[in-house]
Amino acid sequence: MANLSFQLLRSATGSEARRGRLTTPHGNIETPVFMPVGTQATVKAVTPHQLAELGASIVLSNAYHLYLRPGTAIVKDLGGLHGFMSWPRPILTDSGGFQVFSLGHLRKVTEEGVVFRSHHDGSEHFFTPETVMRVEEDLGADIIMAFDECAPYPCDQEYARQAMERTHRWSARCLAAKRRDDQWLFGIVQGGIYPELRRESASFLASLDFPGYAVGGLSLGEPKATTYAILAETLRWLPTDKPRYLMGVGSPEDLIECVERGVDMFDAVLPTRIARNGALFTRTGRRNIRNASFRRMDAPVDPTCDCYTCTTFSAAYLHHLFKTEELLGYTLASVHNLRFLVKLMEEIRAALDSDTFPALRDDFLARYVPTNEEVRVAQKAKWEQAQRAKGEGR
Amino acid sequence: MANLSFQLLRSATGSEARRGRLTTPHGNIETPVFMPVGTQATVKAVTPHQLAELGASIVLSNAYHLYLRPGTAIVKDLGGLHGFMSWPRPILTDSGGFQVFSLGHLRKVTEEGVVFRSHHDGSEHFFTPETVMRVEEDLGADIIMAFDECAPYPCDQEYARQAMERTHRWSARCLAAKRRDDQWLFGIVQGGIYPELRRESASFLASLDFPGYAVGGLSLGEPKATTYAILAETLRWLPTDKPRYLMGVGSPEDLIECVERGVDMFDAVLPTRIARNGALFTRTGRRNIRNASFRRMDAPVDPTCDCYTCTTFSAAYLHHLFKTEELLGYTLASVHNLRFLVKLMEEIRAALDSDTFPALRDDFLARYVPTNEEVRVAQKAKWEQAQRAKGEGR
Repeated sequence: MANLSFQLLRSATGSEARRGRLTTPHGNIETPVFMPVGTQATVKAVTPHQLAELGASIVLSNAYHLYLRPGTAIVKDLGGLHGFMSWPRPILTDSGGFQVFSLGHLRKVTEEGVVFRSHHDGSEHFFTPETVMRVEEDLGADIIMAFDECAPYPCDQEYARQAMERTHRWSARCLAAKRRDDQWLFGIVQGGIYPELRRESASFLASLDFPGYAVGGLSLGEPKATTYAILAETLRWLPTDKPRYLMGVGSPEDLIECVERGVDMFDAVLPTRIARNGALFTRTGRRNIRNASFRRMDAPVDPTCDCYTCTTFSAAYLHHLFKTEELLGYTLASVHNLRFLVKLMEEIRAALDSDTFPALRDDFLARYVPTNEEVRVAQKAKWEQAQRAKGEGR
Repeated sequence: MANLSFQLLRSATGSEARRGRLTTPHGNIETPVFMPVGTQATVKAVTPHQLAELGASIVLSNAYHLYLRPGTAIVKDLGGLHGFMSWPRPILTDSGGFQVFSLGHLRKVTEEGVVFRSHHDGSEHFFTPETVMRVEEDLGADIIMAFDECAPYPCDQEYARQAMERTHRWSARCLAAKRRDDQWLFGIVQGGIYPELRRESASFLASLDFPGYAVGGLSLGEPKATTYAILAETLRWLPTDKPRYLMGVGSPEDLIECVERGVDMFDAVLPTRIARNGALFTRTGRRNIRNASFRRMDAPVDPTCDCYTCTTFSAAYLHHLFKTEELLGYTLASVHNLRFLVKLMEEIRAALDSDTFPALRDDFLARYVPTNEEVRVAQKAKWEQAQRAKGEGR
């Protein structure tokens, strides 16, 4: 795999933060990196041109969703995901384990795999570690994820252990089934909020010698302090010379906190999901553009931002687009929130290059007021309920 | 008005078609021209950057909608429409006469003006020719439209006459009330489908010496043959040295037919409205991208098109976006349909420059199969009913 590598460029002083570079057949990725999510082969409301312009170096998509629609064969025939969605830079596909296990009564798990019903038409499907590898190979992303069982939160330790152990057996089967040598397969650490399970899972997967590791099963509604503590405990048992990817985490404060603990890669639907609801990141916290305070504001929502939205339009114009439910509002808010995170990661990398990350962290966290945790959990629960009602998962 | 002028560059041989150039404070407009519609200060789902890239030289917006939301004062304070929507090129505002008269039971007409209730909050408002001029001056478009009464279709001749005569009196009041000398005020010819009324209306407005004339009250559901005949009869009585704008007409075949009859400017919501429903223009007619025939098509919807959508994505990808109801689909389809019309107008202008318009017309009409008229009228009626239910007008 000459065209796939990870270089650890520098380790920070006084924290676990790392500066690195992933090399893939579709280009390099400077780490730490935030990866915009394009679940259905499109980052919602944003063109690939806009994505490239805002500095995204890799996007994430989802094997489960694409397997169902438009179908793996169609994506493969149209040049794989890169050709299909016209994104020439690196792509990572999640396996769909999270989505399949989110289906609840629509799925049945055996040691061999998972039988599930499509949330679109009720048709029956069977995912095994081997079939998922075929799907992800046909989709053709640069980095593909093992098929895992993601335990929900909360869940008791025995359930978390069973899900973890099945994830381990399936991870080994994924490794054995993988064929293409121009793709990297990452293993996914599970173990819920139980430190001893996380240690066991990280150690076991490390022994399988994956080229990279993801931390799954976090940011599912547990307190942020728990997320950070479990993350740190997990990373202790992973090899330092391989990339570490924290799945589904992407608020600005989380990026800072988790870079500090040693994460190289992040993804989250958060920036685009909240954008479509009118919530925009600023250096002092999230703001809802529908708020009357923006009605006459002849300045960008975030004067420090260099995105197309902030350099072109006033907050008052965005306010108008959201009040009139104009589609352009979703695009402009998504572009801004993505650029906000991509730019934050650029600043983090620059700080790591000059070994000044602690100053950046302190400065950012001193100004940024995170969304109140209770509000955040309630908003997320409400959203997930709405998604389940639509049968869409995350 | 040194910075506003119309130059008739060339008249076609064998038809009434004309090649011209409008000069405005925000740039030149080569005519015949198609003007994308941004009713609420946004061409739906398209950024100003994309609009400029696809070659739009002027966009249209609507005084009625902007007066209600965000309010005229806000647009004025934010730099007028050009600054508010960040569109530095020319803008035309319709007066909102069409929208106010579409409100039905929500409005009451007197000689002085129209009392109407907002379709958003039921609040009461009063539009007169004088107040509409103030609104359009505050919005600051390069070309503004007189406040007219647009009779519906069908309507009897007596009703059409009364609406026309009121339009005449209000047109004179608009002219008298207009103050800014960096805006052009166009008069609007009415008269329904009655040739003698059209002749009377065109002649009367011509006597008021507007710098340009619009033909209103067409394309309201009457047969296309009627549209074309009434248009031709109207244009006969308008001065040849002033621009002629046909309001609300914009199917590809209409553009060809009406350029031939002497129209210089067109606008229509059609290309963006049908785009959001998955209908895309091709050189052989409209296609619905949701059709199963596009499921695996590894070619653009329209291989002759040079737009971002067609040069970047396959029909199969667009099909996928519409089947999964992804917002990006609305953007990509809108960009294509707008570019299709803008490019058609570029070709028409080139043909007029080389005096080969009849060949272009014959070639285009030989290949392009218009949407069946009954289907078209039924679709439009259905859409307008849905709009009325939402209270949005056209």
